[in-house]
Amino acid sequence: MQLIKSINKVKKYINRQKKLGKTIGFVPTMGYLHDGHLSLVRAAKKENDLCVMSIYVNPLQFGPREDFKKYPRNLKADMKLAISAHVDLIFCPTDKEMYEQDFTTLIEVGALGNLLCGLSRPGHFKGVATVVGKFFNIIQPDVAYFGQKDAQQAAVIRKFTRDLNYPVKIKVMPIVRESDGLAMSSRNTYLSLEERSDAVIIYKALQKAKKLIELGNHNPTIIKRFIVDTIKEKGKIDYVEIVNQDTLERVKKIKGKILIAVAVRIGKVRLIDNLVIKA
Amino acid sequence: MQLIKSINKVKKYINRQKKLGKTIGFVPTMGYLHDGHLSLVRAAKKENDLCVMSIYVNPLQFGPREDFKKYPRNLKADMKLAISAHVDLIFCPTDKEMYEQDFTTLIEVGALGNLLCGLSRPGHFKGVATVVGKFFNIIQPDVAYFGQKDAQQAAVIRKFTRDLNYPVKIKVMPIVRESDGLAMSSRNTYLSLEERSDAVIIYKALQKAKKLIELGNHNPTIIKRFIVDTIKEKGKIDYVEIVNQDTLERVKKIKGKILIAVAVRIGKVRLIDNLVIKA
Repeated sequence: MQLIKSINKVKKYINRQKKLGKTIGFVPTMGYLHDGHLSLVRAAKKENDLCVMSIYVNPLQFGPREDFKKYPRNLKADMKLAISAHVDLIFCPTDKEMYEQDFTTLIEVGALGNLLCGLSRPGHFKGVATVVGKFFNIIQPDVAYFGQKDAQQAAVIRKFTRDLNYPVKIKVMPIVRESDGLAMSSRNTYLSLEERSDAVIIYKALQKAKKLIELGNHNPTIIKRFIVDTIKEKGKIDYVEIVNQDTLERVKKIKGKILIAVAVRIGKVRLIDNLVIKA
Repeated sequence: MQLIKSINKVKKYINRQKKLGKTIGFVPTMGYLHDGHLSLVRAAKKENDLCVMSIYVNPLQFGPREDFKKYPRNLKADMKLAISAHVDLIFCPTDKEMYEQDFTTLIEVGALGNLLCGLSRPGHFKGVATVVGKFFNIIQPDVAYFGQKDAQQAAVIRKFTRDLNYPVKIKVMPIVRESDGLAMSSRNTYLSLEERSDAVIIYKALQKAKKLIELGNHNPTIIKRFIVDTIKEKGKIDYVEIVNQDTLERVKKIKGKILIAVAVRIGKVRLIDNLVIKA
């Protein structure tokens, strides 16, 4: 496995591979890898000649009061995991090269970025779209892999990729969960033992909501109320929304394919989770 | 020469050529071709295996009161010129395919797009950057060619291409002028005979300003005043600015490489022109 930090060097690597006719699967991450990330690598390895992973905690997608500085980082451990998963190249650029002093350009997705997480994290999805757009231009992947845990991120990336005609196929892989159901996330490491145990309530609430829907409850207000009531003992609700998976607009009735998305603070840790349901 | 209207078909064409190892020079235009465009084609043909030209009057870069509807179009004449210039492919997509109903994504370059022409054409450079970003993703050119006549457009395109790491080299070719000095532009066709003759004042004013600078006048206020006074008999000044060519910020002293940029209304027709000077 190679580790490259310079944009120019990675471009040269990519050009060489392209000339050899190799297809490239790309897994963008912020590092602190867990099994969720590795499920993306497995798909990328299976479907392409090469798997390129980026490890980059992107300052542009963090708000001024968010956890950019304390976001967990451990390149050594990440490299071990990446090697064991047969990643071909890790690209971990510096902030200085990614955002030069006179950097100003942003990719703006519009309304989609201002809903759900966008409400409490203004500018977040501009930062996400911009860095992913940059990576697509640097890595020129055939396919890029994202996790369904970040459902809104997946929708935003699908949207700007299509709107701007990027020649990249977007694949969104299922949420990988801990044995008790908590969605895997690098931020889970922030949780105290008690908070970790409380956090399971999010998955439980989603599962129970699913059962209610299967039993014939198709009223989003009632389902949302149920989820809020279930979670609020253990965490502070940021949002619970039942929306169209692509437009992220609220649905009036739970019918067809819908997304239940929640954001909750357990202690000081903001966690997100979601469930796609076919009703 | 081929003419392709569908994005998918052009992508297939590009993929075929890429697999054959062909390099692609790209000349984006709004059609109604003149010798300025053809100078870009000549450079593209010389420096690449293939020359792809787009002909597309991009609605996104026109304001609601601007000349989108009456912008001159003549695909038949354009095709003749393109054939004689050995263009390999003309890509002329439909608005419907370029901007699907739910299209929302924009490429935003920041301050650079709000100066000079950006002041009287708000949103114009967002439209330009977005459509060029889309074309870069569709055509995947090695080199893209633009005219120096649109100096701010060139600066905006250089900027977003670099900020977003597009793997495309940007070349900006010199202004091509009519025999009396008027910069070639598809919009010159709007001019009445009298206006056409008046319009020469723009080039004359720039040339005289150049001489004044060569004679040792390095004060931008004085040079600007001179240009304004020279042009104002024949046209309504939108702006006259003496700026850094990359940042488009006003210079305090005319020293080193600077850009004199003007926008003038002759009758109802808004014309732009500029001169790069090394002082």
